[in-house]
Amino acid sequence: MSKDWQLEIKGLTPFVYDFSQGSREMRDLLGGKGANVAEMTRLLGAERVPAGFTITTEACVAYLETNNEPATLSAQVAEALARLETLAGKRLGDRDDPLLVSVRSGARDSMPGMMDTVLNLGLNDKSVEGLAKATGNPRFAWDSYRRFVQMFANVVRGVASEALEEQIAAVKKARGVALDTDLDVEALRELTSRFMTLYREQTGQEFPQEPGDQLAQSIRAVFDSWMGERAIAYRRINRIPDDWGTAVNVQQMVFGNKGLTSGSGVAFSRDEITGEPRPSGDFLLNAQGEDVVSGARTPQDLSKLATLMPAAYAQLTDILALLESHYMDMQDTEFTIEEGRLYMLQTRSAKRPAQAAVRFGVDAVSEGLLTKAQALLTIDASTLDTMLHNTIDPQATFTVLTSGVAASPGAAQGKIVFDSHSAIAAGEAGRSVILVRPFTEADDVAGFHAAKGILTSEGGKASHAALVARGMGRPCVCGAGGIEVDLATKTARVGDVVLAEGDEITINGTTGEVIAGVVALVSPEPNPSFLTVLEWADDLRRLGVRANADTPDDAIRAREYGAEGIGLCRTEHMFMAADRQPKMRAMILADNETQRRDALAELRPLQQQDFEGLFEAMAGLPVTIRLLDPPLHEFLPKLFELKVAAERARLTGEGDIEEIQRLLDRVEVLNEVNPMIGTRGCRLGILHPEIYEMQVEAIAMATVAVRDRTGEAPHLEVMIPLVNYEQEIEMMRELVVRVAHDNGLELGPDFIVGTMIELPRACLVAEKIADHADFFSFGTNDLTQTTLGFSRDDIESSILARYIDRKIVDRSPFETLDPAVGELIKMAGWNGRSVKHDLKLGVCGAHGGDPDSIAFFDANGLDYVSCPPIDVPVARIAAAQAAIRRSLE
Amino acid sequence: MSKDWQLEIKGLTPFVYDFSQGSREMRDLLGGKGANVAEMTRLLGAERVPAGFTITTEACVAYLETNNEPATLSAQVAEALARLETLAGKRLGDRDDPLLVSVRSGARDSMPGMMDTVLNLGLNDKSVEGLAKATGNPRFAWDSYRRFVQMFANVVRGVASEALEEQIAAVKKARGVALDTDLDVEALRELTSRFMTLYREQTGQEFPQEPGDQLAQSIRAVFDSWMGERAIAYRRINRIPDDWGTAVNVQQMVFGNKGLTSGSGVAFSRDEITGEPRPSGDFLLNAQGEDVVSGARTPQDLSKLATLMPAAYAQLTDILALLESHYMDMQDTEFTIEEGRLYMLQTRSAKRPAQAAVRFGVDAVSEGLLTKAQALLTIDASTLDTMLHNTIDPQATFTVLTSGVAASPGAAQGKIVFDSHSAIAAGEAGRSVILVRPFTEADDVAGFHAAKGILTSEGGKASHAALVARGMGRPCVCGAGGIEVDLATKTARVGDVVLAEGDEITINGTTGEVIAGVVALVSPEPNPSFLTVLEWADDLRRLGVRANADTPDDAIRAREYGAEGIGLCRTEHMFMAADRQPKMRAMILADNETQRRDALAELRPLQQQDFEGLFEAMAGLPVTIRLLDPPLHEFLPKLFELKVAAERARLTGEGDIEEIQRLLDRVEVLNEVNPMIGTRGCRLGILHPEIYEMQVEAIAMATVAVRDRTGEAPHLEVMIPLVNYEQEIEMMRELVVRVAHDNGLELGPDFIVGTMIELPRACLVAEKIADHADFFSFGTNDLTQTTLGFSRDDIESSILARYIDRKIVDRSPFETLDPAVGELIKMAGWNGRSVKHDLKLGVCGAHGGDPDSIAFFDANGLDYVSCPPIDVPVARIAAAQAAIRRSLE
Repeated sequence: MSKDWQLEIKGLTPFVYDFSQGSREMRDLLGGKGANVAEMTRLLGAERVPAGFTITTEACVAYLETNNEPATLSAQVAEALARLETLAGKRLGDRDDPLLVSVRSGARDSMPGMMDTVLNLGLNDKSVEGLAKATGNPRFAWDSYRRFVQMFANVVRGVASEALEEQIAAVKKARGVALDTDLDVEALRELTSRFMTLYREQTGQEFPQEPGDQLAQSIRAVFDSWMGERAIAYRRINRIPDDWGTAVNVQQMVFGNKGLTSGSGVAFSRDEITGEPRPSGDFLLNAQGEDVVSGARTPQDLSKLATLMPAAYAQLTDILALLESHYMDMQDTEFTIEEGRLYMLQTRSAKRPAQAAVRFGVDAVSEGLLTKAQALLTIDASTLDTMLHNTIDPQATFTVLTSGVAASPGAAQGKIVFDSHSAIAAGEAGRSVILVRPFTEADDVAGFHAAKGILTSEGGKASHAALVARGMGRPCVCGAGGIEVDLATKTARVGDVVLAEGDEITINGTTGEVIAGVVALVSPEPNPSFLTVLEWADDLRRLGVRANADTPDDAIRAREYGAEGIGLCRTEHMFMAADRQPKMRAMILADNETQRRDALAELRPLQQQDFEGLFEAMAGLPVTIRLLDPPLHEFLPKLFELKVAAERARLTGEGDIEEIQRLLDRVEVLNEVNPMIGTRGCRLGILHPEIYEMQVEAIAMATVAVRDRTGEAPHLEVMIPLVNYEQEIEMMRELVVRVAHDNGLELGPDFIVGTMIELPRACLVAEKIADHADFFSFGTNDLTQTTLGFSRDDIESSILARYIDRKIVDRSPFETLDPAVGELIKMAGWNGRSVKHDLKLGVCGAHGGDPDSIAFFDANGLDYVSCPPIDVPVARIAAAQAAIRRSLE
Repeated sequence: MSKDWQLEIKGLTPFVYDFSQGSREMRDLLGGKGANVAEMTRLLGAERVPAGFTITTEACVAYLETNNEPATLSAQVAEALARLETLAGKRLGDRDDPLLVSVRSGARDSMPGMMDTVLNLGLNDKSVEGLAKATGNPRFAWDSYRRFVQMFANVVRGVASEALEEQIAAVKKARGVALDTDLDVEALRELTSRFMTLYREQTGQEFPQEPGDQLAQSIRAVFDSWMGERAIAYRRINRIPDDWGTAVNVQQMVFGNKGLTSGSGVAFSRDEITGEPRPSGDFLLNAQGEDVVSGARTPQDLSKLATLMPAAYAQLTDILALLESHYMDMQDTEFTIEEGRLYMLQTRSAKRPAQAAVRFGVDAVSEGLLTKAQALLTIDASTLDTMLHNTIDPQATFTVLTSGVAASPGAAQGKIVFDSHSAIAAGEAGRSVILVRPFTEADDVAGFHAAKGILTSEGGKASHAALVARGMGRPCVCGAGGIEVDLATKTARVGDVVLAEGDEITINGTTGEVIAGVVALVSPEPNPSFLTVLEWADDLRRLGVRANADTPDDAIRAREYGAEGIGLCRTEHMFMAADRQPKMRAMILADNETQRRDALAELRPLQQQDFEGLFEAMAGLPVTIRLLDPPLHEFLPKLFELKVAAERARLTGEGDIEEIQRLLDRVEVLNEVNPMIGTRGCRLGILHPEIYEMQVEAIAMATVAVRDRTGEAPHLEVMIPLVNYEQEIEMMRELVVRVAHDNGLELGPDFIVGTMIELPRACLVAEKIADHADFFSFGTNDLTQTTLGFSRDDIESSILARYIDRKIVDRSPFETLDPAVGELIKMAGWNGRSVKHDLKLGVCGAHGGDPDSIAFFDANGLDYVSCPPIDVPVARIAAAQAAIRRSLE
């Protein structure tokens, strides 16, 4: 079925297939549209689908490789055309009753940027008269001809649509008419003639009168459009290989514009917005397909067709149901009714928003159309987070001030503040604020909690602001380079607009838009279908899903979203809060170990409280606590701030110069050229064991306290960050076990010690590290930074955009796992489990919430992923989809 | 021979071997000393070597594991002792003519920190009288007894030697004598009694009178000393595993202190300083071995023995020759002459300075003793660089002010300067200066050229200062933390000493010593033996040796040292020189591409000159040129400097605030959190192709100019740094080839394009990168940084010292290749050559000059290493040794 064997035997590649020869399995060869039209022809019968043929993607690839049509292509097209003419009983270019065809591109997947449709091909100065005669409708004939000339000139030969539209305007003006539909035959003749003159001027050629020439040029234009800029950009974003190529579909025209018994429309098998189980769509009477989508006339709701053309409507709804059950998915179709007769021109799976996707899934299962697993696979996991956030009211109108990176989804609004202190003060006063900064750092975190949203002018999706905002579920727009933030004057400038502290602003973290003033927002509502789908996902997935959560609030939210534990509690926040930082500073500035231990002793009870809150919130579930990770200088003022303060004090006598100098001396010692690969993680624990000892004391005491109070101990997993060497984990494990023991907590099923694997070396020597670790948790953010030598803070904004632009990478490796990083993770997993077969493997990086990365983690035997609470539902679905797809392999 | 089968059959491990049972092959089991004494016994006959037995290292390991002597050990020792008594015809503790023994430790390799010798064991209150009677020399007997008690108390039981010495002083004072040798029998009796009292007070036990008990305690003390602090520290530095254990040697005493026909000494088979082929050494008449080394009496030169005891001397020189030819290496022996009869107590390969090592090698080959390959293996490559530098006159006396890291070998002296400008000015005025800085950066490099040496208070062996200094062959002491450098006041403070600009200072980059004032230096002299050895090495090595050289001067020096090409020319220095930096700044500060290209056009001819110089210096040899690598902000002032300047300008009105602000704006944009993994390497080339285009233009024009002028074109290898992605090298290669072509240079055997492999990702996807690269050069410094997540600038000084201290690592991974980095290099090599079998593989990191790393590179099929010019001779030898060792495997 799939090959034309006669041609094959002659040694010729078959480049052309009639619709009656194809099927949906031949998508790669015939493109999505060609395969679906062929499938519809088989399913609905030839009388329901206008006949035609498809030129294969292989022909396109051959053309692109050699910059020439394959030798036999024109002969094969001619043969297919002859078959079509026989079938239609009409001939292309016939001067009495000509066959007209449409030419459409069609790649494997629907792809914007490819060549638009050319309709009415086959008309010329002669056949237009034949069409007029045969239909008895000269206006229809001339309108079709001018449309063809216009489309051909624009789409095939690149004549600017503005120049063509100018001609229409000129003719309308000359004739004194307002609407296109008011142009009479004479006017349309003149317009056609003007188009042809323009065509000659711009292309240096006469408009082709020979239908075969029209067809050949159109086919070549489709091929060429595969390498057009927009198509390339789209493929890049969607990771579609360049060598797929596109097919070309040539189809007999049917006419929806033959009066009030004709029409064209689009029909969905279910409501495309809500997913409700009833057909929906739009149509126009007496119109061709492009009129419906162009917006020149306002289409009617599909339900109206039931009264206007009940028979056709009944046929259509039957066909929609048939297509849906045949394709086992919600369908998006195009149809034309020509003088009462229904033709189906296209069908494909309907793109749908999250709520429609989950509604369809649940209904399809209850209708017996799909199994739960099949239903899950119809859902695009990456769209689901829109169901969890405030969104801008779709009805609202507003002006976008500027755009940045959509760094953490959802919409938020409030008055502008420029620093964390103001955010906290406003938050305590119950005011809504948006924190606006050039970029953010560890000590801004308290401000994140207090603000409704975060806006930065620098940094990308993996910047500090983005990561923390996602972690807290705060909407965030990052790297909005159009904004100049001046902290000194507390203003943000966008072009001529100056925003001051207290001005209102709205940000849309789903789109990256920044809007001056407030816009109506819509809150997410609990969606029962979504909950049902999540339950199925939990039944079908293998991979566990945990959340990254640092506070009891985060933990409670994570549980609500279905997290099965905490995969990463970053304890640095326990040193950063306003009541902690002075003590932490005192610790860092201590002159000796005694002073240092005294300062730590003051922090201990505060941290114990934090841990108790966390453990109670996660009763019965595992909690992974990472010991202190960031370099100590993050807790001190910046070097340049102190240098400036020292200079100021020197020049003006203001400020305590000695105190400034003391701080400066310490900061100079701690300051690092490359802090990301400096004194942090377990290196701190080895240099200053007293810090880790204090943390473990607090953890152990909190565990014992919660156990005694509630009768339920947390499943504690203490995690050592940034391990390179076997000896590091060995020493730190010894410290953890010893201090826990001294505080009444013994190693066992409910208290294990493991490590974060986030350095290439650790992956390469994982079997040695595994000897001393009960679990590995892959810190994919840092592992990406080191494997690629990409500083997240520096590269995201400056390089990655350019790299994506130049097609060096498809997506940020901080978003979707880089294959080389994946290799290291596989190595580490295998090496680790080769010595400890039950080694628990998890992931706690941004990749834990990315569906593609989740599929990789599932396929490679990891036990769980951990992601920001807000990503947990997406991760649950993505994990189920990965498991289902794996079972189908 | 190697096992006592009788014991084995009984199911007992043999823990004790008589000297007559051992051989030098049994070093692992018997330790170096035990194996050599056994070998000498076999070689020279039992009459030349006092009899004895060795307790194996396995016994020690068993003891350390269980904290108890193995069950059968005491019985085996008793049996061996019985055999020894039979052989000697004397019994231990005999009250008439007692057998006395020495007890010595002996691990596989000679190891300081292990237990010292116990001599005269077997004496007690009874047998001392027997010894007096048998020798007719009561003073000798009592002197032997007090020595034994003193040594046993100190060495075996840890009684402080100061406390023991106090007793001697007290007795001498009471007796009114000055010298130990003036103590008579009575005084020695009293002293022995005082020692025993002290022993009882400090240990709570009586001094053991039972010789078996004495022996057992001594054996246990040797075992325990294996885990002593100094021994552990030594093993750590020398990478000796803890589980080797030590053997114990028990040997019949012979006495060099029986009057003027007796004596003890050390003898080398050749001069131990110069390597001259004549025996050398020291001896003392009427003395025991420890008198020769203690320095209490001044020993005589060995040649004197020829006249004093011609027969013994002749025997000794014969034996030395025999041992040397038997061991095929220069020997270091200990001997004793007892009443005219010569005994050999120990032999081992002589440690020797570089000049002696090469002299021995050359002489041994001409004497037919060794092949060239064998001779090469007797040389310790890591000592050779002392032959290439100024050294401090060994006769000079001086006071060390403080010490730092020995970062680049050689001694240098001059007046202190605190910045590069002063260094350059002084250099031009012909003055010798030492550049003293807290740390150095890229723009200090010009100052390195002008200075005689570099001293920093921060940073380690892989700091910028160390790397650049080594590259230029300038002596350098880094991280001398005892010095506080205050750039503002131009002073350096060491404790109470304040050094000002212009003060004279001497640094020893070989030892890390810093000395106030000038000290006599010795210049290296051309050493013909060294040149001979290098020639052999060149014949025997497989690995090519190139040099890292950035300037014609470096290149000329590299050639002199035998480099076969330049493996790394860092072009950043061509942007840093005083006449370049303003142009580079103009380029970076340009508002648009035109301005940027204009600024670059001014740099181009200057760089072309640089390249021409380099190509002429390396005529006929390959030259690898790395395109610009460091981030652009390295060419601008620092952020904090500008912030301070802006604040100062704001407060005082001094300075051009607008100009400062303009610079500041640019620096803020370019500033990076982690520059090492930021916008550098080919990322720069992709962001700003015009920079690389200018460089390639300059390279191509220089190549053509040199070819036309000299008729000899360089073998050009253009290297793209920091490649991660296939597309990066593809695009950059295209750029290089295109611009070269436009300037008259075509890809071919004399012009290839490759990449630096310095990121883990590149290693993992090397087969893709290899498609577009003619060579890989492993940048092991950066690969170490990323694989281990170790920022060289930050970690070397702060963490690595602690890590070495805590035994987490043996050596800096920036010095000797880390095994995980090695794994990545192997992967990259295999992957790359799997698609391109003739892919050239080189190394251009600090590891290219490290003998251990060179052995790894040789074993893994790399083609060449590239190292600083000064390391080239060492690398040539190390490469030959690696090849020879490989051929022996």
